[in-house]
Amino acid sequence: MARTRSPNRKKSKAANAGSSVFQDIARNPLLWLLAAVPAVLWIGHARPDQSTLLFILSALAIVPLAALLSRATESIAHRTGDAIGGLLNATLGNLTELIIALTALKAGEYMLVKASIVGAIVSNTLFMLGSSFLLGGLKYHTQEFNRSTARLQAGMLFLASVALVVPSAFGAVQGEQITAKLSFLLAVLLILTYGCGLVFSLGTHRGYFGSAVSAGGHDEEEGLWPVGEAVAVLVIATLLIAFVAEVFVHSLEGAGAALGMGGAFIGFVVVAIVGAAGEIVAAWSGARKNKLDLSVGIALGSAVQIALFVAPVLVLLSFVIGPAPMTLEFWPGAIFMVFAASLVAALVSGSGRSAWFLGLLILSVYATFAITLYILPPQAH
Amino acid sequence: MARTRSPNRKKSKAANAGSSVFQDIARNPLLWLLAAVPAVLWIGHARPDQSTLLFILSALAIVPLAALLSRATESIAHRTGDAIGGLLNATLGNLTELIIALTALKAGEYMLVKASIVGAIVSNTLFMLGSSFLLGGLKYHTQEFNRSTARLQAGMLFLASVALVVPSAFGAVQGEQITAKLSFLLAVLLILTYGCGLVFSLGTHRGYFGSAVSAGGHDEEEGLWPVGEAVAVLVIATLLIAFVAEVFVHSLEGAGAALGMGGAFIGFVVVAIVGAAGEIVAAWSGARKNKLDLSVGIALGSAVQIALFVAPVLVLLSFVIGPAPMTLEFWPGAIFMVFAASLVAALVSGSGRSAWFLGLLILSVYATFAITLYILPPQAH
Amino acid sequence: MARTRSPNRKKSKAANAGSSVFQDIARNPLLWLLAAVPAVLWIGHARPDQSTLLFILSALAIVPLAALLSRATESIAHRTGDAIGGLLNATLGNLTELIIALTALKAGEYMLVKASIVGAIVSNTLFMLGSSFLLGGLKYHTQEFNRSTARLQAGMLFLASVALVVPSAFGAVQGEQITAKLSFLLAVLLILTYGCGLVFSLGTHRGYFGSAVSAGGHDEEEGLWPVGEAVAVLVIATLLIAFVAEVFVHSLEGAGAALGMGGAFIGFVVVAIVGAAGEIVAAWSGARKNKLDLSVGIALGSAVQIALFVAPVLVLLSFVIGPAPMTLEFWPGAIFMVFAASLVAALVSGSGRSAWFLGLLILSVYATFAITLYILPPQAH
Repeated sequence: MARTRSPNRKKSKAANAGSSVFQDIARNPLLWLLAAVPAVLWIGHARPDQSTLLFILSALAIVPLAALLSRATESIAHRTGDAIGGLLNATLGNLTELIIALTALKAGEYMLVKASIVGAIVSNTLFMLGSSFLLGGLKYHTQEFNRSTARLQAGMLFLASVALVVPSAFGAVQGEQITAKLSFLLAVLLILTYGCGLVFSLGTHRGYFGSAVSAGGHDEEEGLWPVGEAVAVLVIATLLIAFVAEVFVHSLEGAGAALGMGGAFIGFVVVAIVGAAGEIVAAWSGARKNKLDLSVGIALGSAVQIALFVAPVLVLLSFVIGPAPMTLEFWPGAIFMVFAASLVAALVSGSGRSAWFLGLLILSVYATFAITLYILPPQAH
Repeated sequence: MARTRSPNRKKSKAANAGSSVFQDIARNPLLWLLAAVPAVLWIGHARPDQSTLLFILSALAIVPLAALLSRATESIAHRTGDAIGGLLNATLGNLTELIIALTALKAGEYMLVKASIVGAIVSNTLFMLGSSFLLGGLKYHTQEFNRSTARLQAGMLFLASVALVVPSAFGAVQGEQITAKLSFLLAVLLILTYGCGLVFSLGTHRGYFGSAVSAGGHDEEEGLWPVGEAVAVLVIATLLIAFVAEVFVHSLEGAGAALGMGGAFIGFVVVAIVGAAGEIVAAWSGARKNKLDLSVGIALGSAVQIALFVAPVLVLLSFVIGPAPMTLEFWPGAIFMVFAASLVAALVSGSGRSAWFLGLLILSVYATFAITLYILPPQAH
Repeated sequence: MARTRSPNRKKSKAANAGSSVFQDIARNPLLWLLAAVPAVLWIGHARPDQSTLLFILSALAIVPLAALLSRATESIAHRTGDAIGGLLNATLGNLTELIIALTALKAGEYMLVKASIVGAIVSNTLFMLGSSFLLGGLKYHTQEFNRSTARLQAGMLFLASVALVVPSAFGAVQGEQITAKLSFLLAVLLILTYGCGLVFSLGTHRGYFGSAVSAGGHDEEEGLWPVGEAVAVLVIATLLIAFVAEVFVHSLEGAGAALGMGGAFIGFVVVAIVGAAGEIVAAWSGARKNKLDLSVGIALGSAVQIALFVAPVLVLLSFVIGPAPMTLEFWPGAIFMVFAASLVAALVSGSGRSAWFLGLLILSVYATFAITLYILPPQAH
């Protein structure tokens, strides 16, 4: 991130000096979806039984809120200097996913939470990367990206994925309490590793790994907001996401039943894509501008952050706010998907170039996962 | 394929203008095995109880027929231009495997069919690649091949393999009917992906991936036949393979019992190698001529074609001609082998050079698979 | 190895002409641990019930003995020319691990033996590589190593790992006797492959793979001993290790109970690290001197040797000296760890450069394995 941001910072600051939240909303059709927010709050209050409608509206409402949140974080990060800015990006980069997962955690919907963790890793790696390659490839004959940075990021993702699924892969379930203790210890270890990763990418080796650890990486040429506005947007968007997520999570059971989707499918596909909508748009925009490094960095960096930071934070918080501790035990299909997705990232990034069919092939793998999960939902734990 | 073929097409056409089917049979000792064809048909009629003899004779008879078939396809493909020729190669490239598998499908021998699918992927990747590296390495001290093409092909093979084993890896068997439905949907998805791959490799990006999707890639310097002869050979060889395959499949049970081999072992080793004999010879010939790109292209391209085209076609046809739908459910060892083989392809192709011991090591892995399958046959589903 | 050794052999011989065993002991603080050897022998005789004390003392005593053994092997190997020297290194390189495992084998402690095989592969790949990257990275900003050699070694390690876990991955347990027969056959195959690997790396392709097959690779600039002294040290150290290993293995059960560690954890962590202490020190020393090729070569070469030589030798010997044949059946967590560790090696070596955080991340994965094994010990077979 520091890598792609540094060269043209001053220029972009100057060029976008006058940008403001309202101008952006007027210009960006994605943000018009904000109209769904009041609808969600009103219908959620007046007709809480309309699950399917609420499910669709709240999913639509989260997308622009997540985009605002991520732009606000970027704007603040830019004014605070590289180190603090990077830290902000790294901790708030997946805030939307975190808020939705926390709401589900409080409601005791553990399958949903786990499915959305797995879904976030898999959809960052397969859906975001695959669709960026496809969209970029439809415009450019072939595209190149920095092979060694991508390979390092993919290597880190593989390591993080392995660490995350260890307890399940050992297949040695021996009572709730022992697994909870193990999950607690591993969560602490993963967060410490993540902390060291921040020291590395923001301190000792700024710009070396690129956006390997922090998930931001949004395109610099879009406008930045004044700090005051940005902080206000950050607070308001977070609060609104929390409200909408509440409606979203509570509508899931009814909507899932009506639409024939299990909790695992909803968490894996819907929550993961809704939560990452802002990043997906940024990755696509990078690919269409032939800046594939940006897309790869956002996709892999965000997946690493989910595995090393969001997932363990959820485990630790489950000891405080959940009805029972959430463990790091995943169902066999989840282990396979995380493992396969991070290997795909490693193998694909090794070649350093892409074309449309490679993107389509990666999307096919994602589609086989989604179809299988839809038709063969995992048994509840 | 287009890549290796284009440069010297005109020259090779000129040099081999006079080649004909009968000259080739006289010159090529492999084709003398055609003598086994009438023997199979006669003994299959007169003494159908001689399972072991029929098994050996029909295996021997398929080898030269497959070689004729593949040469005929090449000859026609050359005269029809790149696009249609590539399409012919891509759809008829694994015709022998397809005919044998269809015969087994009709007889309801699903374990044999699945084992031959897995065997075709694994033996293309490990046996064909390993033996090419070994044979080439015994002649040349070290050999180089195009790393980025090989890496792209291996990446595609990994993606195709993952897509193929998803339902089994999810380990969530929930009734025959649901699994059949899932297999149907995934088969359609894989075939669509394969179709896009043809558009890519024959249309938008001709020559970019090399022979990544189409499995032909035979050595150009051997003679081509006149179109009329080639079409006649194509039709006759296909019919003869269908007859011989019938005898072959029906001799399997008796011969397997007599030779102590289970259906999975026969499908995995014997059917896979007999069906791919023509390609194996072409890959070896490439390696001995220090054209390792050709060998790697044939091996990986053919494996991709099995996973993305032959396997799903068999699933779809099982709904029409089989006694019951065949699903994409494989036994755990099969998943491990496909996954491991495609990773081996990815890791080995990453280095871009080979020597005899690397080939031997790959063959050792193939041997451990074959030995284990012989001694520990999978339980029937 | 030959690769790094050849250039400056003459110089290093000349510079270190006067080195002797006693000088080395005086200079090297690690060797002061030799004081633990008489303590072990005495307490083992006088107070055999002091399990925990004996466990700690014997672990400490093995470390300097292993270092002496490995230096003695190096010294002899240097005087006997490349071919025989390489053979000595390759067969005696993991002698300490072999002696400890043999002692455990005789005592029928099969879980301990298997855990130490798995532990040796995993700790070579993750602990040795990770800590070398970390220690080197704390001194140098970034470090480079020869990507193609590392990739070949990692590819070989992956192939060896796959071959080793095949029977367990097939998941088709069908009676002790059949599994024992299968393990016997595969052990013979692996040893033959290893033998061919020696022909390759010491014969036809000396210097091509570097230290891919032989595990020595110690730093040349340390002093070499006169042959007579070296042979004496080799014999005496081997005998002492055998005695100490006896005490070590018999103290394990008591100490494990007292310290709350199961047999699998002790074998995986303690035996693996104690047995490889000499190589770990050599790998660290390479990393601190910015010779990362040496560290990578020692780590991956030694892991290959365990998989292709030590493990199958133990299987074969179990038919002679064990209470029952030991099979190549591992528990599911072990398969996952070996598979994941060899993939980590492959992915990490692909980039050809390292920095401290990469090392820390690899160590984190190792830590998750160790913690999980401590808290969720595998069920005995």
